[in-house]
Amino acid sequence: MTLTSDFGAEDGYVAAMKGVILSRAPGVTLVDISHTVARHDIAAAANALADAAPCFPPGTVHLAVVDPGVGGARTPVVVVAGGHCFVGPDNGLFSLVAPRPEAAYAISDPGFCREVVSSTFHGRDVFAPAAARLALGAAPHEAGPPVALSGTLDLARGHRVVHVDRFGNLVTDIADVPSAARFRIAGRAIAGVSQTYESVAVGALCAYVGSRGTIEIAVREGSAAELLGAGRGSAVDVEEP
Amino acid sequence: MTLTSDFGAEDGYVAAMKGVILSRAPGVTLVDISHTVARHDIAAAANALADAAPCFPPGTVHLAVVDPGVGGARTPVVVVAGGHCFVGPDNGLFSLVAPRPEAAYAISDPGFCREVVSSTFHGRDVFAPAAARLALGAAPHEAGPPVALSGTLDLARGHRVVHVDRFGNLVTDIADVPSAARFRIAGRAIAGVSQTYESVAVGALCAYVGSRGTIEIAVREGSAAELLGAGRGSAVDVEEP
Amino acid sequence: MTLTSDFGAEDGYVAAMKGVILSRAPGVTLVDISHTVARHDIAAAANALADAAPCFPPGTVHLAVVDPGVGGARTPVVVVAGGHCFVGPDNGLFSLVAPRPEAAYAISDPGFCREVVSSTFHGRDVFAPAAARLALGAAPHEAGPPVALSGTLDLARGHRVVHVDRFGNLVTDIADVPSAARFRIAGRAIAGVSQTYESVAVGALCAYVGSRGTIEIAVREGSAAELLGAGRGSAVDVEEP
Repeated sequence: MTLTSDFGAEDGYVAAMKGVILSRAPGVTLVDISHTVARHDIAAAANALADAAPCFPPGTVHLAVVDPGVGGARTPVVVVAGGHCFVGPDNGLFSLVAPRPEAAYAISDPGFCREVVSSTFHGRDVFAPAAARLALGAAPHEAGPPVALSGTLDLARGHRVVHVDRFGNLVTDIADVPSAARFRIAGRAIAGVSQTYESVAVGALCAYVGSRGTIEIAVREGSAAELLGAGRGSAVDVEEP
Repeated sequence: MTLTSDFGAEDGYVAAMKGVILSRAPGVTLVDISHTVARHDIAAAANALADAAPCFPPGTVHLAVVDPGVGGARTPVVVVAGGHCFVGPDNGLFSLVAPRPEAAYAISDPGFCREVVSSTFHGRDVFAPAAARLALGAAPHEAGPPVALSGTLDLARGHRVVHVDRFGNLVTDIADVPSAARFRIAGRAIAGVSQTYESVAVGALCAYVGSRGTIEIAVREGSAAELLGAGRGSAVDVEEP
Repeated sequence: MTLTSDFGAEDGYVAAMKGVILSRAPGVTLVDISHTVARHDIAAAANALADAAPCFPPGTVHLAVVDPGVGGARTPVVVVAGGHCFVGPDNGLFSLVAPRPEAAYAISDPGFCREVVSSTFHGRDVFAPAAARLALGAAPHEAGPPVALSGTLDLARGHRVVHVDRFGNLVTDIADVPSAARFRIAGRAIAGVSQTYESVAVGALCAYVGSRGTIEIAVREGSAAELLGAGRGSAVDVEEP
């Protein structure tokens, strides 16, 4: 099982979820994706999930809780896609990793929740027990009735930077361009798709197919985000030859 | 087993403890609570333990090392409370999670320590091997003679903020108040106990029963700590109707 | 297996490696050493490895990826030392933990890599599958041909500070000095090797044999790095009596 949240590293909240999971599903393997995305930053968590979740074996349960609307109207859901299960609030968190889910269910069965459910910590009281139940082999449809997902991610799509990583690399949503394509971002031009950073000079800009399969823009041994003053949402023009 | 410390995320010290534990108790499940509380901040670690440890299954061993007095006079202890074992220095670290322990033992048996014990890293040389020994099934009283705990936490108690979490929520020690109670903190009044953040407007203050069972003060989609300039130790007045 | 990198805590890259490992070696125990050393700071990761790796049981595989030259000329290697296996780029990362390795092999066997190898994420595509293969019992020499390591660490050696930890303690490379030795650093003198911080006054400087077996310089309940304005590379003079 993987875990993603905006609960941070100082508080006991992540471990509280793990305690609930291990109490119900002893021996399950727990792997953190990230808990230190900015608070309420659903898009950052969605990006981390998109980078990591597909590397896990089929059948993996992914628990994710970035949930500014906890206790409100958004629906707790189980989302099934590509042989993986995603558990969390219906607020767009899974829209990058599972853009076309095979099924989604609202979590309403009491057996998928803790005995007492607080209004403010569904990570511990709803999502953790639901994820444990799935890890123990429950079928997703046992969680509750099918639901149409309504959460969407506030990411302008289409030739944009969708994520800036720790290295200042700009991950875009641009895919399937010829290697001779030219890119323009923040007034700078980049000619061609490189094989690797190492093929340009130290400090130079380059574009390459990143680990997610889309174009990334980077500076060798530097930060493209800093050099260009670019960030999530920045537009990237593509000229195909 | 859970692990808590102020060793931070950059150094190899947390992993050194885990290596010692896994060398002695292969296969034990290790879960981090927090290692990034401010250095020497015993109260912050005590809060993280109080939030997380009770969620773990009975029999769990909790290793905690925030230990500014390492190598000095404070006693390494095993504390038994509520079916859990806590291992660390007797300096108040366990006073929130285990205010009335059932038993406590000084760690003195050589079988609970590493062969060579340094003066500066008891986490690795005393607490980790002791925790491993307990995880393997040793009885707490095998660690050494019973001891009366003397460590206390420097937390003014009684209608105070005892913890500020990553979201700027103010966790208090106030419990069992009627839902019509009024609260005053930093010159601001809050009327009534809400069910959830979602029941007030964005940016508004509210009080609710938090995940620990005590009153928390929060701002919907904001930080109460910032809005009020309040922090650990801030006084909260309660007027019962 | 342990994991060390400069991938940070916000992105999904560390978990991507873990997903690859668990897909190939289900049930392997994964322990993080550090992922938050400064980006491209090979020496910081080398220090964390030196502190943590020797505490793990013989046979442990240690995966480490701080790899500014990814996709370039440096060689992916398996290094064998002291009954442990180290997997990562040949760039000096293992020179502190394994200064005199028993053997080293270039990773070239396709069975040690992912089916498709990107140019920018060898952590996921080369080092993770290679580490998984070793964890499953493959012999190091199956990875590829023997290789002479060429990576060196940019650490001026010989009576220097080699690491500053979270507490501001200065870890040096000075070993085997008599307890009456005197130390000079940044214009300040320290007389004698103390047993522990607790043997000096709060705020006072002391030198002691640290957890790595070398001399460390610290301030009781303070930061020696701040007090002295010293850091990695600072010279330390030793006068033996």
